[in-house]
Amino acid sequence: MTTPILFRFAAGVAGPWTIDGIAQVSGEALPVAERLAVHEGVASSVPAGAVWLLQGVTSNARYVTRAEHVALAARQPPLGRPEATRAALIPIRKSDTWWDLSQDERRAILEDRSNHISRGLEYLPAVARRLHHGRDLGEPFDFLTWFEYAPKDAPAFEGLVACLRETEEWSYVDREVDVRLSR
Amino acid sequence: MTTPILFRFAAGVAGPWTIDGIAQVSGEALPVAERLAVHEGVASSVPAGAVWLLQGVTSNARYVTRAEHVALAARQPPLGRPEATRAALIPIRKSDTWWDLSQDERRAILEDRSNHISRGLEYLPAVARRLHHGRDLGEPFDFLTWFEYAPKDAPAFEGLVACLRETEEWSYVDREVDVRLSR
Repeated sequence: MTTPILFRFAAGVAGPWTIDGIAQVSGEALPVAERLAVHEGVASSVPAGAVWLLQGVTSNARYVTRAEHVALAARQPPLGRPEATRAALIPIRKSDTWWDLSQDERRAILEDRSNHISRGLEYLPAVARRLHHGRDLGEPFDFLTWFEYAPKDAPAFEGLVACLRETEEWSYVDREVDVRLSR
Repeated sequence: MTTPILFRFAAGVAGPWTIDGIAQVSGEALPVAERLAVHEGVASSVPAGAVWLLQGVTSNARYVTRAEHVALAARQPPLGRPEATRAALIPIRKSDTWWDLSQDERRAILEDRSNHISRGLEYLPAVARRLHHGRDLGEPFDFLTWFEYAPKDAPAFEGLVACLRETEEWSYVDREVDVRLSR
């Protein structure tokens, strides 16, 4: 479960996901592309000619407590549900100010004051999610979060995203792009 | 300060550090080599023919609180002091059990019960230290810690290392090698 796995998101003309839109939320945008493929593992071959290629590794949880982990594990659905034909890839980068904070300060902002974990819990089991870390790989984004949901849950997902962007935590986000997809 | 920087430790026949010994503490050993070079940055060129090559990135602190950070920052010396002619490179890997723990559980073991941070503080400013993370890079070791100290502080350094190996935290270490160097 916690063994890091590298995932690469290749946008171009190939892949099972149609890119419905790429919105620049803050900082530099990402170029327009038609389709997206998700490649799992270091050994996976990424087709040449991608318009953009982002990568990140799944890793151990950095903030959740055991109690939160248990609550999340009980409710979170797997990726790949047949009815989950909508997806979002939301790459974000946080500021140096964020990364200079200590663990207790980051946790206080992320959960005690921004309710990131508990708020996310409210949207389970509708929204499936996988977090990828890119910062230590020298990637342009610190995090790539991949979400999958059914069309009927799209309004709820929009609510979650809008809500998080209003939090104190998000004041530390200095680049964010929102890629929406369907299959 | 917190921008991740890749460091590569190349053991072979070249480099400013003489390898005085490589001890296998737990798990698989590392091959014998004569000298070690430390290369900083992705763009640095590592000479071909290294006997072994380990890499890791400096990153944000994962456990220290603000109070601990302030205490550490006030006492920790820089690397490269002229009198610090002894060094140690200690690569370790922790078990899947460790990585499956939640943040609060890992912090409780690391500091509340093993006093890793407070114990390290007692050895400042004698011992300079830099931590590199390798797990998310797919490296064989999760952490590479580099220490520099003067010959007169060698007994104190041995005390620190021996003390940490007796802690509850260290029961989660499933591979450890201890490379000692001088220049």
